Amino acid sequence: LDRKKLKRNLEAMSERATRHDLDLRPHLKTAKSVEIGRLATAEHSGGITVSTLREAAYFIDGGFRDITYAVGLAPDKIDTVAGLQGDDVWVNVLVDNVPAARMLAKRADTLGVAFRAFIEIDTGDHRAGLTPDAEDLVAVAQALDESERVDVRGVLSHAGHSYRAQGADAIAAVAEEERHGLVVAAQRLRDAGFACPAVSPGSTPTAVYGKSWAGCTEMRPGNYMFFDLFQAGLGTCGIDDIAVSVVATVIGHKRDYNRLYVDAGALALSKDASANDTMAGAGYGLVCDMAGQPVAGVRVTNVSQEHGWVATANGGDPLPFERFPIGSRLRILPNHSCLTAAAYDRYYVVEGHALVDEWPRINGW
Amino acid sequence: LDRKKLKRNLEAMSERATRHDLDLRPHLKTAKSVEIGRLATAEHSGGITVSTLREAAYFIDGGFRDITYAVGLAPDKIDTVAGLQGDDVWVNVLVDNVPAARMLAKRADTLGVAFRAFIEIDTGDHRAGLTPDAEDLVAVAQALDESERVDVRGVLSHAGHSYRAQGADAIAAVAEEERHGLVVAAQRLRDAGFACPAVSPGSTPTAVYGKSWAGCTEMRPGNYMFFDLFQAGLGTCGIDDIAVSVVATVIGHKRDYNRLYVDAGALALSKDASANDTMAGAGYGLVCDMAGQPVAGVRVTNVSQEHGWVATANGGDPLPFERFPIGSRLRILPNHSCLTAAAYDRYYVVEGHALVDEWPRINGW
Repeated sequence: LDRKKLKRNLEAMSERATRHDLDLRPHLKTAKSVEIGRLATAEHSGGITVSTLREAAYFIDGGFRDITYAVGLAPDKIDTVAGLQGDDVWVNVLVDNVPAARMLAKRADTLGVAFRAFIEIDTGDHRAGLTPDAEDLVAVAQALDESERVDVRGVLSHAGHSYRAQGADAIAAVAEEERHGLVVAAQRLRDAGFACPAVSPGSTPTAVYGKSWAGCTEMRPGNYMFFDLFQAGLGTCGIDDIAVSVVATVIGHKRDYNRLYVDAGALALSKDASANDTMAGAGYGLVCDMAGQPVAGVRVTNVSQEHGWVATANGGDPLPFERFPIGSRLRILPNHSCLTAAAYDRYYVVEGHALVDEWPRINGW
Repeated sequence: LDRKKLKRNLEAMSERATRHDLDLRPHLKTAKSVEIGRLATAEHSGGITVSTLREAAYFIDGGFRDITYAVGLAPDKIDTVAGLQGDDVWVNVLVDNVPAARMLAKRADTLGVAFRAFIEIDTGDHRAGLTPDAEDLVAVAQALDESERVDVRGVLSHAGHSYRAQGADAIAAVAEEERHGLVVAAQRLRDAGFACPAVSPGSTPTAVYGKSWAGCTEMRPGNYMFFDLFQAGLGTCGIDDIAVSVVATVIGHKRDYNRLYVDAGALALSKDASANDTMAGAGYGLVCDMAGQPVAGVRVTNVSQEHGWVATANGGDPLPFERFPIGSRLRILPNHSCLTAAAYDRYYVVEGHALVDEWPRINGW
């Protein structure tokens, strides 16, 4: 983890949120690190977003007190959420349907525990969430309201379809769709008597390219801390902004096949190949020297569990074997940093070539 | 982890090895569990195979004493291997090139430490290894022999191309290619004066379908303990032999899109989509009820970090929403159990519906 690049990415996003008069509630699903969470929230309210309850527990241990768990609540997790909350410690939950809302309200009364809930809005991604005009929207709020212990905080969306947009203008259009959908949903709830104080959009591409945030109160990007090849292909960052890489060692030359092998494979890099959708020939990662400079045209072209195949992207150009003797090291830029980082229990933090720190991270559920 | 299925898989492979007069040196890269390692080696020498040195350390702590680290040795790991070895504890290493062999020999003398080395043979997979007729084969043995402290144990191959074979006969042909290549390589080494006592083939498909093992001394399958959809598609196991599954909870219905959402996504299932090569429409996993019975035609068709999309394989047939109410649980059979299991730090061991044990596992490097 390159500390300078991390800090540059954090500062750029923090400045964007401040400029748009939004709280930055960063999604820690990528970094999953208390140290990074502290840096990312330095200029803001201290609220964060997480993707698992194990993350929530870890960040509560690390001193965070206002955490949004941004995956639709499974009813069998309600008691876990209750157990994590404490004196002024909140794990805000997400619902998008009447049965879950009703189970939460009922359980709140049974346990005698207060909860804060967001209603998830589908602003075009068509993953989870209710569309802004969904018949059930007010019914979900009313189901939550069946308990006085449940506070309807507001509406939340993840514009995942920004990952399928092409270019800055298309991403800006998705951002506007996300904003507009949230504002429409919030207004419907207000018309029905719910104050709906929080309006929360969130994705790295829309956070980078969104123009208006009128009516929103916060943003929840996450991947921007590290970025990756997918984001670089999408135009959300440059290659030089990617803050994490996997260090691998050359373990074999296969000159007859114009390729070599490194000791980083499917588990070390992940099998996420999505960057190839935005960057032709990304393979399973771009190969860099140990200074982090990409070696032109050289990729991880295939992986098995602990082996990575390194070859030229087109397969035809000769691989510069002399730059990669047996035992030499190289850096691999990840396709999708959220998945690659999840293979590790810590970050080796570097400034230039110097190892300056080790930061643990949390994994699992 | 279904203990009955696990034991049935272990017993079938153990019986195969015994019948062919081979030691079973199971590859623990899939299970990464001391408890499972003990069960898998019960009727055999106790030797095992691992894919990382962290696994080696973990199994040494668990009492294992003869471990083959079956990834080509990176020279920067030689000292770690030396540190893991001890009184009658061996971490056998793998080399396929003269520079690595020479570095090992030199370092053995510098450290005053003995090592056992295998030479990796490429019997058709064209990943790592020297072909049986490679000019360098004897040179690698001679480079190892530059130190009296390095024992040339023999030859080792992983017939990864068995994963690309179609049907039992084609896999049997790969197994014969693997056996023949190893025997030829061993004979060349013996002709050059190396005793080459160990001849080690290893892959689950070839272990299941191989006919002759003449000249081999052990086998090293690993995936067979759990199997997965890829193996079922290949014909190496039945769906009912798959011993691990991911339990997920339904968190949302998206009736307009004929799909629903569960709280298991890319991290919980892995993004390995390779099973689709052997089983059309496998998606990211087959959906089963909690008794482990597949729900016909229902799949995880897409994943994001913590969300799984559940839909019918063809997209057109209506999803039986009434079987999957909000909050209900289901089991997902993994595409590739080696990668799916790597997301977890333990196994929840079941017999029928009863949780009977928790077994930890090791991850990372």
